Amino acid sequence: MAVYTEVSDEDLNDFIANYDLGDVVSCKGIAEGVENSNYLLQTTKGSYILTLYERRVKPADLPFFLALTEHLAQRGVKCPLPIHGRDGATLRTLCGRPAAVISFLSGLWPRKVAPRHCAELGKALAGLHLAGRDFKQRRANDLSVDGWRRLHGQIAAADAEKIQSGLHELIGAEIDDLAAQWPKALPEGVIHADLFPDNVFFMGETCSGLIDFYFACTDFLAYDIAVCLNAWCFEPNGAFNATKGQKLLGAYQAARPLAADEKVALPLLARGAAMRFLLTRLYDWVNTPAGALVKPKDPREYLKKLNFHRGISSAAAYGLA
Amino acid sequence: MAVYTEVSDEDLNDFIANYDLGDVVSCKGIAEGVENSNYLLQTTKGSYILTLYERRVKPADLPFFLALTEHLAQRGVKCPLPIHGRDGATLRTLCGRPAAVISFLSGLWPRKVAPRHCAELGKALAGLHLAGRDFKQRRANDLSVDGWRRLHGQIAAADAEKIQSGLHELIGAEIDDLAAQWPKALPEGVIHADLFPDNVFFMGETCSGLIDFYFACTDFLAYDIAVCLNAWCFEPNGAFNATKGQKLLGAYQAARPLAADEKVALPLLARGAAMRFLLTRLYDWVNTPAGALVKPKDPREYLKKLNFHRGISSAAAYGLA
Repeated sequence: MAVYTEVSDEDLNDFIANYDLGDVVSCKGIAEGVENSNYLLQTTKGSYILTLYERRVKPADLPFFLALTEHLAQRGVKCPLPIHGRDGATLRTLCGRPAAVISFLSGLWPRKVAPRHCAELGKALAGLHLAGRDFKQRRANDLSVDGWRRLHGQIAAADAEKIQSGLHELIGAEIDDLAAQWPKALPEGVIHADLFPDNVFFMGETCSGLIDFYFACTDFLAYDIAVCLNAWCFEPNGAFNATKGQKLLGAYQAARPLAADEKVALPLLARGAAMRFLLTRLYDWVNTPAGALVKPKDPREYLKKLNFHRGISSAAAYGLA
Repeated sequence: MAVYTEVSDEDLNDFIANYDLGDVVSCKGIAEGVENSNYLLQTTKGSYILTLYERRVKPADLPFFLALTEHLAQRGVKCPLPIHGRDGATLRTLCGRPAAVISFLSGLWPRKVAPRHCAELGKALAGLHLAGRDFKQRRANDLSVDGWRRLHGQIAAADAEKIQSGLHELIGAEIDDLAAQWPKALPEGVIHADLFPDNVFFMGETCSGLIDFYFACTDFLAYDIAVCLNAWCFEPNGAFNATKGQKLLGAYQAARPLAADEKVALPLLARGAAMRFLLTRLYDWVNTPAGALVKPKDPREYLKKLNFHRGISSAAAYGLA
C-alpha cells in the first residue's frame, strides 16, 4: 500500500498535456506497489497507470525497464506498455520524480492461489522467457549472491538477533554455502525476478497480464522459476504444495523444457531465491520506522522456506516430472 | 490513505454477481478516505466505487446515507449514487462488513485551493442544502456540542497536555462557553458536515461532484458553511484568506441568502466547527498506534483556527457582504 507523492491537479494536467490522451477525468492513488507511487488515471481516452518512481528504483535503470516491456508486449506478452508522449519520450519528470504513463491491464491478482493459477503462471513465465530471448539490453541482477552479501553487511547483527537467535551468523554461513555452489552457467536471459501473485492478473481462469517489471534483469531463467516456487507454492501454514509445484513446472516445461543442469540446480536456486526475499524483508523490517505508512512483511516466512529448500535433494520434491 | 479489508477475487466475483454490472475487469484499493475501505471497481459496464464500511460508520446509519444521496442525486446534486442489486438492495455484506457499490464521479479534488474553487464550493453547498429541504429522514449530529463533551471526556488530560500545555482545560472551558451560546434555532436541514477539499471534485473550473456523505446529518445549514470556512479558507501558513471566504459566502448567498440570525451566528458556528475537528483529530492523534497504516493529522491546525474564530466579532471578517 503506497502513495508517497501527492500530485496536484495543476501539475497533473500540465504533465498529461505532453500526451495525446485527452483530458483527465479522474486520478486516484492506488494502494498497490510498495516501491513507487501509483495512480489509476482515467482520461477521455481510457484508463492508464501513472507511476512516479520513488526510492529503490534507480533512474538509470528506467530506460531498461520501459524498453523491456515494450519489447515483450510486441511479442505478445501481456504487460504494461509505456505510453509515448507527443515528443516520443516515455519518461519525464513529475513532482521532482521520474514518471511515466503506463497502459492499464485488466484483471485481478489471486488473493488465494489455487493449482490452476500455478499452471497459468508457468505458461506465462515461459512465454516471458521466450519473448525475452532477443532482447539486446542487459541489466545485472543486483539482488543475486553479491547483493545478498551487501544486504547482510547492512543489517546489524543485533537487529537480526531480535528476529531469531543466531540469525545473523546463520545467514552469513548460508550465503557462503550458496556462493560456493552457485551455478556458473545455466541458460540465461531476461527474468522478471519478482513474480509474486500480486504481479499476475487473471480474468476468470486465464492469466491476463504480468506487471511490475522493476526488478527485471539478466540472470538464469530457472532462477525466475525458483522465485515463483517460493512465492506461489507454499501454503499459508508453511507447507510446500507439490501439486502447485507440479502445475507450475509442468506448464512451464510444455512451452520451454528445462535442461538437465537446470533441473539439478533448482533446489539450490530456490534456496537462493528464499535468501533474497529473507534479506530484503529483514532489511525492511529493521529499517522501517515505527510510524511508517507501509507495514513491512515478516522475514521469518522466508527463513522457513529457506530451511525447506535446504532439506530438498532433488527437484522431484517440487513436483518436477 | 486506507484499505483495511482485503477482498479476495472469489468473494468479489460472488458479490458483484448480485448486480447487473457485467463482469469484473479490475478492482484496485484506492488511497482515499480514512474511515472506510474503498476500491475503484471496473466492470464490463463501467467504473464504480466499492465501499466496505469500517469503524466509525454505524451500520444503523447506512440506510440514511444511501437514501440521502439517492434523494440528492434525483434533485440534480452531483453525488455518488448507490447501485441497486437485482434484489433492489443497495446494502449487503462483503468480508463480514456492510458494503455497497456506488456510482463513480469524475473529477479531481483541488490539492491547492484557489478562490475560484471556493466560489464553486459555495454554489454546490447551497445546492445541496436546497435539494435536501424535502428529505424526510433525520439523523442527529453526533459530533455537535454533546459529542464534543463526550470526546473531551475520552481524551486523557495527560495526552492532551503532550500536544500543548493547558490544552485539556482550555478545551473544557471552550466547550462550556460554546454550549452556553450555541444557537437554539436557526434554519436547519440536511448538512454534509465534512465538506473538505478532498470531498469536492472539479473538472477544469467546474465542480463536478461531492462525495463522502458519511457524516451527513440534520443540523443548522449555516454550520455546514462554518465547516467549509475552516476547511477551505485558511492558507497553509494559518492565515485566513478573506477573498476565499467572500467567494464562498457570495456564491452560497446567490443561491440561498443567509438570514440575519445565521449571519450573526457564523463566528460562533465556525468556532464550534473548529472544535469538532480539533477534538476528532486530537482523539485520533492520541489513539493511533505508532505502527498504524494511517498517519493522524495534526490537531494543532484546528487549535489555531479555533483561536482565530475566538477573535472574530462579526462575519464581515470572513468576507460576508
